[in-house]
Amino acid sequence: MVLCDVGNSRYHFYYKGTAWHKKCDSVPEITIPNFDNKIYAISVRDDALERLQSKYDVTLLNDKIDFDTTYTGLGIDRAVACSAIDDGVVVDAGSAITVDIMQNGIHLGGFILPGISRYEKVYGSISPRLAKSINLAVDIQSLPQNTGDAISYGIIASIVEIIKKSAKGKKIFFTGGDGPYLAKSFDNAIVDNILVFKGMEKIIKDNL
Amino acid sequence: MVLCDVGNSRYHFYYKGTAWHKKCDSVPEITIPNFDNKIYAISVRDDALERLQSKYDVTLLNDKIDFDTTYTGLGIDRAVACSAIDDGVVVDAGSAITVDIMQNGIHLGGFILPGISRYEKVYGSISPRLAKSINLAVDIQSLPQNTGDAISYGIIASIVEIIKKSAKGKKIFFTGGDGPYLAKSFDNAIVDNILVFKGMEKIIKDNL
Repeated sequence: MVLCDVGNSRYHFYYKGTAWHKKCDSVPEITIPNFDNKIYAISVRDDALERLQSKYDVTLLNDKIDFDTTYTGLGIDRAVACSAIDDGVVVDAGSAITVDIMQNGIHLGGFILPGISRYEKVYGSISPRLAKSINLAVDIQSLPQNTGDAISYGIIASIVEIIKKSAKGKKIFFTGGDGPYLAKSFDNAIVDNILVFKGMEKIIKDNL
Repeated sequence: MVLCDVGNSRYHFYYKGTAWHKKCDSVPEITIPNFDNKIYAISVRDDALERLQSKYDVTLLNDKIDFDTTYTGLGIDRAVACSAIDDGVVVDAGSAITVDIMQNGIHLGGFILPGISRYEKVYGSISPRLAKSINLAVDIQSLPQNTGDAISYGIIASIVEIIKKSAKGKKIFFTGGDGPYLAKSFDNAIVDNILVFKGMEKIIKDNL
């Protein structure tokens, strides 16, 4: 069973414990021996989904999820990743950082921060004196003593503190490109880059 | 005695309890009865300072400040505002938000966040779905239930939490355009838009 999470810029694939991705501006080749052409997918990008459907037998799971939330407009990828857990916080740290809180299988709400690399660009637009590269090794336990660290601390410490506050001691599941980096600042962190596929497997098991 | 804080975009003036500002891309007119042409100034922008000096008798205070810090490259405006207090946190919330910690007259360090309006622009650059206007009335005590609030909460709550954490119960002095708004989220807040001028008066008293 091949799973695919169609994102804004990439097809994220999963098959028997292995995850990989391809750019989603062209039809992706899948090179699995004896592949039956069947893909289970969720999608946030219609044209990329259509490209996938043009070559493969795609079962779309977008409408199959039974997700308990009062949040309107929650992205399908966030909902599916959250549905993989019953309790805890899901942090998907990519070009945006989404933070969602789950309790007893219910989604309590969530919030959105800019991705780490997006923060970096903002400072330079304020003043040339603030155009510094982010120092990911900045110590967020000590007050900064120069402009570069003051900016890196501002970015990282503000992200870490608001996640910490919203978690209220719950386990925090980090996914996305900056997940492993952010996870280092937490005692109760779990890095899980296949959370969305675990959610998809659960939906398939419950529905099909 | 007329005081002037020459900023990146504005001359900030102060005279006998009244503060006002002028754009700093042209020579500013000063209409005070019997004005003796003397101005005490600090400056972060050389060409604007030169314009001021072309018409007025300017005493520059940049080198007169005796400020106890190990921070390298601290802006003169931050140092002067901090020197107005002995203990507490100084938050200057403008196009950037600078946060500086003072203890027993010593500057312990500080950090820099993007200004509130700068955050707003970032989200739209990530995805059109995230191009939302910030809702300054967002409740940061409750988890957001839609995309607009998720973004507004991300901005405001992350700023508030990192300031709160760094303050460790100290008094927080808010200055700058977004100071009065941010101050509302703190019990220990003081809004003081003339902090930098209080610092300048202290330097003048100590030095001249």
